[in-house]
Amino acid sequence: MITIAVDCMGGDVGPASTLPACAAFLDSHPEVRLLLVGRPEAMSAWPSVLQHPRCQVVPATEVVAMDDPVEVALRKKKDSSMRVAITQVKDGAAQAIVSAGNTGALMAIARYVLKTLDGIDRPAIATQMPNARGGATTVLDLGANVDCSPEHLLQFAVMGSALVQAVSGLASPSVGLLNVGEEVIKGSEVIKQAGVLLRRAAEAGDLNFHGNVEGDDIFKGTTDIVVCDGFVGNVALKASEGLASMIGAFIKEEFSRSIFTKMGALFAYPVLSAFKKRVDHRRYNGGALLGLRGLVFKSHGSADAFAFEHALARAYDAARNHLLESVRDRIAHAAPLMSAALQAQDAGAATSA
Amino acid sequence: MITIAVDCMGGDVGPASTLPACAAFLDSHPEVRLLLVGRPEAMSAWPSVLQHPRCQVVPATEVVAMDDPVEVALRKKKDSSMRVAITQVKDGAAQAIVSAGNTGALMAIARYVLKTLDGIDRPAIATQMPNARGGATTVLDLGANVDCSPEHLLQFAVMGSALVQAVSGLASPSVGLLNVGEEVIKGSEVIKQAGVLLRRAAEAGDLNFHGNVEGDDIFKGTTDIVVCDGFVGNVALKASEGLASMIGAFIKEEFSRSIFTKMGALFAYPVLSAFKKRVDHRRYNGGALLGLRGLVFKSHGSADAFAFEHALARAYDAARNHLLESVRDRIAHAAPLMSAALQAQDAGAATSA
Repeated sequence: MITIAVDCMGGDVGPASTLPACAAFLDSHPEVRLLLVGRPEAMSAWPSVLQHPRCQVVPATEVVAMDDPVEVALRKKKDSSMRVAITQVKDGAAQAIVSAGNTGALMAIARYVLKTLDGIDRPAIATQMPNARGGATTVLDLGANVDCSPEHLLQFAVMGSALVQAVSGLASPSVGLLNVGEEVIKGSEVIKQAGVLLRRAAEAGDLNFHGNVEGDDIFKGTTDIVVCDGFVGNVALKASEGLASMIGAFIKEEFSRSIFTKMGALFAYPVLSAFKKRVDHRRYNGGALLGLRGLVFKSHGSADAFAFEHALARAYDAARNHLLESVRDRIAHAAPLMSAALQAQDAGAATSA
Repeated sequence: MITIAVDCMGGDVGPASTLPACAAFLDSHPEVRLLLVGRPEAMSAWPSVLQHPRCQVVPATEVVAMDDPVEVALRKKKDSSMRVAITQVKDGAAQAIVSAGNTGALMAIARYVLKTLDGIDRPAIATQMPNARGGATTVLDLGANVDCSPEHLLQFAVMGSALVQAVSGLASPSVGLLNVGEEVIKGSEVIKQAGVLLRRAAEAGDLNFHGNVEGDDIFKGTTDIVVCDGFVGNVALKASEGLASMIGAFIKEEFSRSIFTKMGALFAYPVLSAFKKRVDHRRYNGGALLGLRGLVFKSHGSADAFAFEHALARAYDAARNHLLESVRDRIAHAAPLMSAALQAQDAGAATSA
């Protein structure tokens, strides 16, 4: 039995999407228990979920608002549903926690309550994007860290490898370093230095480093994992969401232009809905916060019940496949290599200076 | 009469796409002359273009390869078609130059031959992306500058404004600063400082600064211009190209799944082709290299004749609308504001220190 703590108050609509998602998830996963964390009066409209035999309500008096500054969420709202839910993981009452709340607050509270793993400076957010090979590319970081050092990017590569290995079962997932060209000489100083570290880690046999990749490689599926700083990852993710929405709107507009195009839509309907299902970003909802001493998953704030259910599934898969232990082991195993790489880099810098 | 110098040898296939594009462009633009720069023997298969009354062949003995290092292109190949074409602009023989060659080489040679405008440290590459409002968003920089300072981003904002004003005729195009959130406190240090500079420039009345925008705003068309460093811009552009290709491939695949879906495709054909036309990235081909003492346009290396023709049209529009003078005037006008903003920032830094 896996127990997941759910921040029922997070996201744009809170319980109106999280509780129906919990109900559906319980139906399809008989080996799951849920801790429903939130304000009981706000959740009372969904009695069947609250009274489900595999659910337990954990009351919390406060809610972190989507626009609360991190400081307010962290220092003023000590009884928030987000914090109480994370504490369930710290206390061992749950194996994972899922929240659709404010990303900055979730990261800060999770870091404060759970702490980072040994060898990790900064946790990262990893998510999946669909690719042309019919699978998904895991991309990290997606906004937790806007200014990254080469060492951070190396840590992201190791954690991303652990995630894909645990959840997808790939023994040696490939890692690409997001850059503006495939050549080693391309990119910013940070990226070039990160390339050196990643190559050294690969030579030591602890990372399957493919080399530099470009923006389009995320969707081509050139590598299983794409590593980048949080600024670039966030822009790439949001630009892709924006483009997908625009294309969706264009298709709708073109098909509703006249009676003839509407008839065309009727005939094309089965195909269009198959297509829509295939690129439905809700199916990829649920980012993993990696590098913490506990499993934390972030749902999109605007997630509906269908999307939130997918975030629950991701947390469940991670807990079931022992992601936490997998990340810890990989980091521990790579630790000597990481420091060796750092020392080699320092020596190289000293020689070239 | 506008004269455009064309690097006929640039791009993946060289004359096979540039010369048919020139022929089509001459047909639709009676007030244009073209200087066809390249190796005469490589261009001889298109005699009707070479002998066109409004064309003149300018021979060049060398070609910059797509994978030539910048140093080779700049120092070893002094009689390359790219360099000879750029020199036509310097010498006043042409008002603009278009090349589908190696971006790094084009930027380096253009900078060396033409020099930058007063007040500009680094030229930027600007291109248009289609948006949901039915127009296009101008994004810069797209890869010329991977490490940018706040001052560079301010210069990009001013140059982008000049471009959109000259080519689209908008009196006061709006500028968004690409960031990971709309709030002023978000983002990397460079972006936060750039936000301060852009707000000061806007207060001085020389820039219509909207504020921070996110990746999806490029495609929403929230602002006319989106400013970012070349690393982020390049990743956003390529990720979007990758996603668009994937979606195109998915649609094709879904429609060819069975005899029934193929029939659906038949009925949906007029709509699908209208849609395809609408998002055809070839129609947006042609990036402007801004900040140089001459008009330089970069076509995608893989451009076919249809795409290259659009790059020619962009160069023509820019020359006809006096883009060079417009950028020069805007930069000159903003120069006191830019230095005032810098001084104010320095003073602020001193006060807060």
